[in-house]
Amino acid sequence: MAVSRNAMHIALMPGDGIGTEVTEACVAVLQPLARRHGLGLDFEMLRAGAIAYRDTGSAMDEATFGRARAADAILLGAMGWPGIRYPDGTEIAPQLDLRFRLGLYAGVRPIRALPGVPVALADPRAAGIDMVILRESTEGLFAARGKGEVIEDREARDTMVITRATTERLSHFAFDLARRRAAKRGRRGLVTLVDKANVFTGFAFMRKVFHEVAAHHPDVTAAHHYIDAMALDMVRRPWDFDVLPTENMFGDILSDLGAGLIGGMGFAPSADIGDGHAVFQPSHGTAPDIAGKGVANPTAMLLSAAMMLDWLGTRGAGEAWCEAAAELEAAVDAAFAAGLRTPDIGGRAGTAEVARVVAGNIGARL
Amino acid sequence: MAVSRNAMHIALMPGDGIGTEVTEACVAVLQPLARRHGLGLDFEMLRAGAIAYRDTGSAMDEATFGRARAADAILLGAMGWPGIRYPDGTEIAPQLDLRFRLGLYAGVRPIRALPGVPVALADPRAAGIDMVILRESTEGLFAARGKGEVIEDREARDTMVITRATTERLSHFAFDLARRRAAKRGRRGLVTLVDKANVFTGFAFMRKVFHEVAAHHPDVTAAHHYIDAMALDMVRRPWDFDVLPTENMFGDILSDLGAGLIGGMGFAPSADIGDGHAVFQPSHGTAPDIAGKGVANPTAMLLSAAMMLDWLGTRGAGEAWCEAAAELEAAVDAAFAAGLRTPDIGGRAGTAEVARVVAGNIGARL
Ligand SMILES: CC(C)[C@H](C(=O)O)[C@@H](O)C(=O)O
Ligand SMILES: CC(C)[C@H](C(=O)O)[C@@H](O)C(=O)O
Repeated sequence: MAVSRNAMHIALMPGDGIGTEVTEACVAVLQPLARRHGLGLDFEMLRAGAIAYRDTGSAMDEATFGRARAADAILLGAMGWPGIRYPDGTEIAPQLDLRFRLGLYAGVRPIRALPGVPVALADPRAAGIDMVILRESTEGLFAARGKGEVIEDREARDTMVITRATTERLSHFAFDLARRRAAKRGRRGLVTLVDKANVFTGFAFMRKVFHEVAAHHPDVTAAHHYIDAMALDMVRRPWDFDVLPTENMFGDILSDLGAGLIGGMGFAPSADIGDGHAVFQPSHGTAPDIAGKGVANPTAMLLSAAMMLDWLGTRGAGEAWCEAAAELEAAVDAAFAAGLRTPDIGGRAGTAEVARVVAGNIGARL
Repeated sequence: MAVSRNAMHIALMPGDGIGTEVTEACVAVLQPLARRHGLGLDFEMLRAGAIAYRDTGSAMDEATFGRARAADAILLGAMGWPGIRYPDGTEIAPQLDLRFRLGLYAGVRPIRALPGVPVALADPRAAGIDMVILRESTEGLFAARGKGEVIEDREARDTMVITRATTERLSHFAFDLARRRAAKRGRRGLVTLVDKANVFTGFAFMRKVFHEVAAHHPDVTAAHHYIDAMALDMVRRPWDFDVLPTENMFGDILSDLGAGLIGGMGFAPSADIGDGHAVFQPSHGTAPDIAGKGVANPTAMLLSAAMMLDWLGTRGAGEAWCEAAAELEAAVDAAFAAGLRTPDIGGRAGTAEVARVVAGNIGARL
């Protein structure tokens, strides 16, 4: 993608539970936003997830996967449902299949305190939390998915795999991201690998490869930190960190922990990025307890969509996409700064209300 | 151990850095405490750790290990030092060898907000945090310690092992602990297994075995929670949890995170318990940055010693040991409730000063 493009083909996978609700709210905001920037979003609705599995026997059939792969980007709500499982008892999670099959190694999970949204920590510096957990999303412990074994009902084994190739790509991605955040957001240009190199061969290897890559990015500071110490620092001084690449399982843990710091999963967007493909989705699940009530917080979904627009722009589709992304993020921030409060933070604004206020901030009436 | 005993043989392993300082302070408090309860503590000083490795070529020689194993309990300061490493680059950590070689499967890591000690979370309920992370300490991902492999500088593998035998023992331990905490501390009798059973074979197996064991403990509530959701709930509603058994690596992460909530590692005691052997040590490390200055907070060490006394009592040495444990814990609580503040929470009370105040609360002058 070298020439700028004004229209994009987006595979839309609302999924299950509140996934469908936040997707609808998000599309309602994206349409006028795109128009305003002279851009076109051509959405193709695709069915996948737990309900699809129950109804068709397939969580994401091959035709659907093929359509998703052919799109310029994939925008996903949430997938999974309690009680609907694969025969081996594991969760229906086609989002994991997308990560593995499309090689989406870079799980970008921003943790940012939004103006006006209450944070969990007492220290006033917590209002300045602005980090990205960069979760490797195709290997690590998750390489064992579907491959673990139980021997004679006596012992189970799952093997964590860390490769040089993926660690190199993830590390370059981390340094590039930190550089961009320094330029665009005034962050300090710090990449901190989170590992457990003091005990495990795989993590010692990961750290070695990371520092080899760091040598190619002398303008960005490279550091490393043990996962246990990092878990502690997430609640002691999270404002001191910037970009945190880490292994898949560690990243899953740290990103949910981080979401807890800034108001909960309703405020945690994510992107899973590979070479040429990417999925954008809120970090939250399908929330069966509140599904269908119109009260789900669509903020994480809106911020994920902003990440999508930005990614399209940085890949060469043109600066207008990045501008639209920045405007969407600013519109979300402004909504909360002005007092918008969703039920998950003790307020009353439902899914449609958030969409309406955010759309209003970009000059559109829903 | 069926008859009550008034004297115990304690292997004392101060280790490195602040380990030696907090151990000294702890022994100073334990001596008068034991006398007051008509008990005897016979300490045998043993050398192990990073400095021992540097000076002798062995982090813990066989004679030392044998002496430790022969003792009634092992009281350990902290071990390890930056720059002193095994040839493969991993940390000098004989405490891990003790866990593995003595089969200390139950890593008991209480996370309790002490009266007067500032907590990290803004919610006032955080003052009521009182949970135990029960970290399995002999297998899980740590089964790969020293066994992981790097293939042609291209890919590294570490295998997580979860056995039925250890999961059963850990689960029984968890239910017994919750029952005792309900009786002695008025806690609610809740055991929550923390796993990732939705993705991994090993964790699905662990959950299955856990619920089999739960059926033998109908008086205690059994639940399970995903590690990512648990990391979130550690910062959203940690006061709702009681006993949390989990895999080794997950337990390492959650216990440090928990320590961050209640004032830091200086307030996090631990015990590694097996069938017949046990090691008691603060969860913190050797803190090279403050070692030798007399400012290390010995609270975690004192609370670990209280756990040791209690364990000796519950194993049949007699109620007097449990009473001494309860008095030590109460003396620590009273010290902070009365305004004692260590440097790690913004105060000035050094190691010896804490020991002096706590000893004063049990009627002794240091
Ligand atoms: C649904 C689950 C398998 C998934 C994961 O662990 O990757 C989710 O927790 C996430 O973080 O995207
Ligand atoms: C020193 C280190 C290897 C050790 C561990 O990870 O077990 C420590 O973090 C702990 O929690 O006791």
